[in-house]
Amino acid sequence: MLGQMMTQPLLISSLIDHAERYHDQTEIISVEADGTIFETNWADVAQNARRMGSALTKLGLRPQDRVGTLAWNNRRHLEIYYAVSGAGFVCHTINPRLFPEQMTYIINHAQDRVLFFDTTFLPLVIALRDQLTEAHHFVLMGGRDEAALSQVPGLMFYDELIETGEPDYAWPSFDENTASSLCYTSGTTGHPKGVLYSHRSTVLHSFASNTCDVIGYSAVDVVMPVVPMFHVNAWGSPYACAMSGSRMVMPGPDLHGEALVNLIDTYGVTLAMGVPTIWQGLLAHADQSGSKLESLKRTVIGGAACPPTMIETFRETYGVDTIHAWGMSEMSPLGSTNFPLAKHLDLPVEDQHKLRESQGRPPFGVELKIVDDNGNDLPHDGETQGDLMVRGHWVLDSYYLLKDQDILQDGWFATGDVATLDADGYMTIRDRSKDIIKSGGEWISSVELENIAVAHPQLATAAVVGVPHPKWDERPLLIAVKAEGEDPTEQDLLAFFDGKIAGWQVPDKVVFVDALPLNATGKILKRQLRADFSDILMG
Amino acid sequence: MLGQMMTQPLLISSLIDHAERYHDQTEIISVEADGTIFETNWADVAQNARRMGSALTKLGLRPQDRVGTLAWNNRRHLEIYYAVSGAGFVCHTINPRLFPEQMTYIINHAQDRVLFFDTTFLPLVIALRDQLTEAHHFVLMGGRDEAALSQVPGLMFYDELIETGEPDYAWPSFDENTASSLCYTSGTTGHPKGVLYSHRSTVLHSFASNTCDVIGYSAVDVVMPVVPMFHVNAWGSPYACAMSGSRMVMPGPDLHGEALVNLIDTYGVTLAMGVPTIWQGLLAHADQSGSKLESLKRTVIGGAACPPTMIETFRETYGVDTIHAWGMSEMSPLGSTNFPLAKHLDLPVEDQHKLRESQGRPPFGVELKIVDDNGNDLPHDGETQGDLMVRGHWVLDSYYLLKDQDILQDGWFATGDVATLDADGYMTIRDRSKDIIKSGGEWISSVELENIAVAHPQLATAAVVGVPHPKWDERPLLIAVKAEGEDPTEQDLLAFFDGKIAGWQVPDKVVFVDALPLNATGKILKRQLRADFSDILMG
Ligand SMILES: Nc1ncnc2c1ncn2[C@@H]1O[C@H](COP(=O)(O)OP(=O)(O)OP(=O)(O)O)[C@@H](O)[C@H]1O
Ligand SMILES: Nc1ncnc2c1ncn2[C@@H]1O[C@H](COP(=O)(O)OP(=O)(O)OP(=O)(O)O)[C@@H](O)[C@H]1O
Ligand SMILES: [Mg+2]
Ligand SMILES: [Mg+2]
Repeated sequence: MLGQMMTQPLLISSLIDHAERYHDQTEIISVEADGTIFETNWADVAQNARRMGSALTKLGLRPQDRVGTLAWNNRRHLEIYYAVSGAGFVCHTINPRLFPEQMTYIINHAQDRVLFFDTTFLPLVIALRDQLTEAHHFVLMGGRDEAALSQVPGLMFYDELIETGEPDYAWPSFDENTASSLCYTSGTTGHPKGVLYSHRSTVLHSFASNTCDVIGYSAVDVVMPVVPMFHVNAWGSPYACAMSGSRMVMPGPDLHGEALVNLIDTYGVTLAMGVPTIWQGLLAHADQSGSKLESLKRTVIGGAACPPTMIETFRETYGVDTIHAWGMSEMSPLGSTNFPLAKHLDLPVEDQHKLRESQGRPPFGVELKIVDDNGNDLPHDGETQGDLMVRGHWVLDSYYLLKDQDILQDGWFATGDVATLDADGYMTIRDRSKDIIKSGGEWISSVELENIAVAHPQLATAAVVGVPHPKWDERPLLIAVKAEGEDPTEQDLLAFFDGKIAGWQVPDKVVFVDALPLNATGKILKRQLRADFSDILMG
Repeated sequence: MLGQMMTQPLLISSLIDHAERYHDQTEIISVEADGTIFETNWADVAQNARRMGSALTKLGLRPQDRVGTLAWNNRRHLEIYYAVSGAGFVCHTINPRLFPEQMTYIINHAQDRVLFFDTTFLPLVIALRDQLTEAHHFVLMGGRDEAALSQVPGLMFYDELIETGEPDYAWPSFDENTASSLCYTSGTTGHPKGVLYSHRSTVLHSFASNTCDVIGYSAVDVVMPVVPMFHVNAWGSPYACAMSGSRMVMPGPDLHGEALVNLIDTYGVTLAMGVPTIWQGLLAHADQSGSKLESLKRTVIGGAACPPTMIETFRETYGVDTIHAWGMSEMSPLGSTNFPLAKHLDLPVEDQHKLRESQGRPPFGVELKIVDDNGNDLPHDGETQGDLMVRGHWVLDSYYLLKDQDILQDGWFATGDVATLDADGYMTIRDRSKDIIKSGGEWISSVELENIAVAHPQLATAAVVGVPHPKWDERPLLIAVKAEGEDPTEQDLLAFFDGKIAGWQVPDKVVFVDALPLNATGKILKRQLRADFSDILMG
């Protein structure tokens, strides 16, 4: 016997409908591709999304055709999110920082029929165009531009295309499991693979994000997603913020500390999210400029381990609560966020702070476990480390166009991360399984060593990788970037580990470099570091 | 093309699984039917629920068989919620304050096969038993009791029945649209009708409840549902709190001010919810006893209009934020809650307070509109009043066993309430359509007059109903209960309306009574007042 409740599909269009109906005048501040500021609101975003949805339909797209975007975080990109998915197509966000060959591969693999792009990427589009075998329509995200048109015959313009849409277009209804959007993994550890989200998974992920102990957006928040919309949909914030009716500040192309601090201070941002490398720049600028980041209450930091010193600086200097989050493209991305339990409030404040350093616990809707090499469950004792496995409503089932490859183990997805879980379900990422350093049968967490190193006042940043060693198979190597005007020695740095970890875990050597190689999402490319220094200890 | 995400059903069992896994040691404080306190936690509740689910299965129940409960808010009731729905049966919570005939009608109509009851209701069960034609098993919620057994042959005992369940029983999986639970409307305005919730509607309602601007339970909250578990599932809190891993305080049978204040102060309750009449008693006791309700941060008040003076007292005297909520059995029940928008924070504080008095705006997942007598949409201008219509993921589609009766209008459910909606979607309930007073073609809100009357310091409580009038068809009559030791006159009270509303809306007359007739959920029975005073103005 079924319940006797209304059953409506969980559709992305219902998110924007909700924002339009109940948060129409709520501001969306958009830094456009050219750096100018455009102020709009949920009503106009919704209206434009519907018109663009209609325009795309008139272009002759078939259900679930892919529509690519090469764009920053701005209002047109937001409109495209809703236009494409709402009208029943698949919004494929492309990371413009990928190598051109990777980009061509991804666009062709996804069979993008339409490609929207910000003016920044016009040269890129001109360069790639001939190799994009499936793309029929190129749309510059702006007004008519004759110069651009002369370079790309048939080029369309966002502001013109939208005019061809019907203003009273109504969103279609369909199965909530229909594909809605597509992201390729960032390729930190291998060839990019596509994750094909559904309307249902997206709406459920939005619900979870909006619960208080996950991220908890509110209509009184001013939310700035610094994480790009081409990186796991800016962690789902464009969807979740429509659900909560939050104000949004879309920071556009310039993610340097100065630009971000200005946006926070000008628009009263209360909640911002991004990867640790971004916050490093922001904190450096705030320190220099003397901004107190007055309005900022919370940062969500994830995508890579957030160093405890960063959490501390946010807390002690700026009164900002950091929510350390862990996730993956394969998880929409939220897998865990760090919020306290009631019993923690009785602990001494230092212990409470310590507990906020881990990657946190999973929301309802996601389950985590750790297993050994044979797939046996390992204890949740906060000590035992194992391969982290996940399952849940917004976890992928198979990669796009790779349905035949059964990647699950008993229904669980192997994250490729090595983690511990404690009795309360708090998870600590020890490392990526490919990055963990295997020294004579013992495992050393590169993340733990990095967290110590970056706390050294004379370093700007640092990475630790395992490099081949004649006796121990692998040993840790510290690759360090000096802070401006500082000149620490190898000895200074190695001495800094004393008493903080066991002696045998201290790196064997330090190499100073001018900058670390970063991948397209700002993560350190350890693969490359390992290759660069592969024989440094082989003597 | 479908997305390539894991698809798992949204089941109530996954809520308790989550609480068991991530909030196992989090306390559940239970005031038992005999007044003693029992402390348990989510792990034990989950374990007991599974055993009881197994025991019920072994009893031979078939899928979706109904299991009735006559019980207070306590931990066994909580276990039953999860045991029954988790195992695939339907949990039918029965309001014990109904008249015996209504109760018999409901239990037979639902065809409850098992009836769980607290010891309080043993006499009632003995009295009704012979008329309960479908009930095969009666289970007293406690340990073995020979005296009870001698009165009810075949009587079973909760603590024994649970022992027959398998400790390693695993929840079954099934279609998320399966029926999970059943509530009958309270019969304020007519014959009780059943609302049959589904697993999906319940989990989605829990998600919505847990978002910050709806109720926003958190793992650091200590939640006390004063609203009974037999009244729209205590507004869904037993489900939502498992999702958030909140501590719960289940207040048992005694809902007087003194008992509630003690529980709040002893267990550090941070969030409590209930109908206005309950809070009246609580505030009176807190005032008398001098309790400052130190720990309490938020109250959710709904089920009937919350008088602005109550919101003010909570705020000014106790520093408690009141979330004014509106809902119905037909809506699981949440239809709207009052949280501010970002733009409101710029208003003078008095205006902000004023805005918190309405019934608020709907969460994502619910839509509201108002229509005229012909079903035409009315403007959302904050002025125009009309019949309030709703639709959404947790709104009923048809009443239980009345599938043939198409109660929807174009897919919308008519609430029976008269409301205004403003441009931001904030809704104000003017009245029930049956209670609104139609005076010479003009409508007078009985709620508005009551809000004024209860603010009079010499009144304990008051109601306003429309009674027949020879000239104006209907005119308002104020029925008032004097505060202890006070003796206001009719003139005093009528003068109190001066300047607060238009002169023609002031009641024609005042009647003093010792107490107002309340229905089974503590709401004023206006039907009865209208009958009692039907010719008082007919001269
Ligand atoms: N808070 C965090 N702490 C440590 N690591 C994190 C955190 N958040 C994310 N990560 C890392 O990022 C990974 C997910 O990143 P993402 O999905 O962006 O692509 P990627 O894994 O970097 O790229 P690819 O899968 O193509 O190699 C996780 O598996 C984990 O290793
Ligand atoms: N905050 C509120 N302000 C005003 N009225 C409210 C509020 N919350 C609920 N109500 C009233 O309560 C009604 C829903 O109550 P419920 O579902 O408990 O049963 P009932 O309507 O009292 O009983 P019945 O439908 O059997 O007559 C709403 O339709 C509305 O009239
Ligand atoms: Mg990865
Ligand atoms: Mg009703």
